[in-house]
Amino acid sequence: MSKIYADCNATTPLLKNVKDYLINSRLNGPFANPNSLHYLGNQLSQGIENCRKHLGKLLSIDDQKIVFNSGSSESIATAFWMTIGQVILNKSKKTHLVCSTIEHAAVIENALYWKKKGATIHWINVSSDGVVDLEQLKQIFKLHSAEISLVAIMAANNETGVIQPYEQIAKLCKENHIPYLCDTTQTIGKLDLAEELKEGVFLCVSGHKLGAPLGSGFLVLPFRDHYESLIKGGPQEQNYRAGTQNYLGIESMTVALDWHYQMIQAWNPLMQKKIQFENKILASITQAQIIGARSSRLANTSLISFKGIHSQGLQIELEARNIFVTTSAACSDNEPSTSKVLRSMGIQDDEGRSVIRISTGLELNLEHYDVIAESIISSFNHLEKIHFN
Amino acid sequence: MSKIYADCNATTPLLKNVKDYLINSRLNGPFANPNSLHYLGNQLSQGIENCRKHLGKLLSIDDQKIVFNSGSSESIATAFWMTIGQVILNKSKKTHLVCSTIEHAAVIENALYWKKKGATIHWINVSSDGVVDLEQLKQIFKLHSAEISLVAIMAANNETGVIQPYEQIAKLCKENHIPYLCDTTQTIGKLDLAEELKEGVFLCVSGHKLGAPLGSGFLVLPFRDHYESLIKGGPQEQNYRAGTQNYLGIESMTVALDWHYQMIQAWNPLMQKKIQFENKILASITQAQIIGARSSRLANTSLISFKGIHSQGLQIELEARNIFVTTSAACSDNEPSTSKVLRSMGIQDDEGRSVIRISTGLELNLEHYDVIAESIISSFNHLEKIHFN
Repeated sequence: MSKIYADCNATTPLLKNVKDYLINSRLNGPFANPNSLHYLGNQLSQGIENCRKHLGKLLSIDDQKIVFNSGSSESIATAFWMTIGQVILNKSKKTHLVCSTIEHAAVIENALYWKKKGATIHWINVSSDGVVDLEQLKQIFKLHSAEISLVAIMAANNETGVIQPYEQIAKLCKENHIPYLCDTTQTIGKLDLAEELKEGVFLCVSGHKLGAPLGSGFLVLPFRDHYESLIKGGPQEQNYRAGTQNYLGIESMTVALDWHYQMIQAWNPLMQKKIQFENKILASITQAQIIGARSSRLANTSLISFKGIHSQGLQIELEARNIFVTTSAACSDNEPSTSKVLRSMGIQDDEGRSVIRISTGLELNLEHYDVIAESIISSFNHLEKIHFN
Repeated sequence: MSKIYADCNATTPLLKNVKDYLINSRLNGPFANPNSLHYLGNQLSQGIENCRKHLGKLLSIDDQKIVFNSGSSESIATAFWMTIGQVILNKSKKTHLVCSTIEHAAVIENALYWKKKGATIHWINVSSDGVVDLEQLKQIFKLHSAEISLVAIMAANNETGVIQPYEQIAKLCKENHIPYLCDTTQTIGKLDLAEELKEGVFLCVSGHKLGAPLGSGFLVLPFRDHYESLIKGGPQEQNYRAGTQNYLGIESMTVALDWHYQMIQAWNPLMQKKIQFENKILASITQAQIIGARSSRLANTSLISFKGIHSQGLQIELEARNIFVTTSAACSDNEPSTSKVLRSMGIQDDEGRSVIRISTGLELNLEHYDVIAESIISSFNHLEKIHFN
């Protein structure tokens, strides 16, 4: 049986056309430092600027706010550095941060670091449906808006796929003149970029979530303005990010995002198929629950709990059938306990330890959803027998 | 005429065997997140650990001190962050820094940033031969050793190729219990790693200086110890550097460094040929001077001044002959003035604005040095005529 990869929220396989691009157009060169003032360097630096323009056009944003870097972990650390980091280092007064409890570790760990250095964090809770509490955010803004240097609330959660009310959050942040970091790692290429996110918001993109190689990504700055760079040195990226630009990554990522924008309508049939898939599971397994079912979710993501069995058992059963899924986010997959995201939603351990995440991409053969459903059902039946024997 | 690329200190073309590796072994997958707990993820994470072990063995260092990241600019920012950055943020007392005046911008700009936040910088000068002044370093250590949180002096300069007395610097730093950042970006793969650098020193490597793709590199930590990560988030790289590891870059870089270690003896004939090349230039052009000629220099680097002509004119003439060189470091190539490195060596503008850098790699056909020499001589003669007409 051919392999079915359903762990796209962790990373995506290289897109076919990215691979073709690399083999046919890129790996034969030219190779040069884009900052060298000879023809080869100019050619590559022009290539990078063309990518910047094209990405700006795809996202309908000012391309001069695009800062190429190594990916979203760096983008998020940079947004914290540019805001709360400088506040702390300059002994300024806006020492408050706002974060949701379901942020990726890249956000949480930065917030906790700056807390140790003097920041105050306001945590925004989520409902049992996995959606952040806007009323709580409004209350915090009422009391502290003058003290807040950054609000970090993601566009869609990587575990549940639940889409957050980022338009309203962006609007509230703008009204209160507070920088907003919207972690768009899981949404760019899947959802059109909302008007409210096109200016005044830190955005981040990782090429490897879009079928480009790892190690490329970009941060979008809120405005053309002065921001302190995290990685300092040469004048690359308008002094926002030093280091020779990874043009191979930048070009691949542009090919990949362009393809996603061409294909963006294809998420609709994929979403329809995913709902059929989920319904088939629910109809066959009474214990099954779709986490965040009542919320708007990403087309590609299903997080399903199977009370009574252990998720890792199910994952291994599926793997034996050549189907690759995870039990939660890749970067917290090692933790045996319920993920922080699920705990925030009030999910108890008996349910939280029984979840698997199926996250697909546009290159999936839709019929594979049927294979995954059948495999889950037979694996579940098998595990349940073992459990009750 | 086929292209001659002689700008390897800026970046290197992909090595043939890295390209073969990518096309034949890597671009067909498997693709997965190395942190996902399924077979594919395990396979990739095992691949990364094999690379770490192999790199540790090649360099004869403790592989557990290797932290994979995006390259030397990040490594350098990280070393500053882990030392003076934490000192400033924790309001500790070791607020002094030591830097040479010929460091790469990646070092200088970090030093200047932390100076604005309270650090004191001691600048170490260089001789007219381009070598840092060890006596000055000893004097500074005598007066301030208890206050210094980092010494940053490169292994070899990227513009002149002059090799610095890093063994003695490392020894002095160890005697005084001061962390040493030795920027080894230009030396790893060219020189065997000195015993004195194998422990207690921050080292940095960029894959793209070794024939691997851009966007990969690693930092070597001084010890297995607690260091504050610059990019925070998931537990990758033993919590020293968050973000999904760029396994394609890591594997390519390992292939490239392995090849360099296999070929390391080949730098000797290249160096011999380079000296012949330089002598031919000196014999034909009376104004020509080899910068740093009396110092030990990297086998691959020649920085030559041609008083009376402007370097950019010569660069363009060579480019018309399909030979690609630069006038100084790629990242400062846009500056029309004498480079900081040359000014530190006491070189005046009439000479400093007339230099070109020829930096080659092990895949160069050695006879190309003859072509470059002839082209420089005829270009110079042509430019000189224009100049004096």
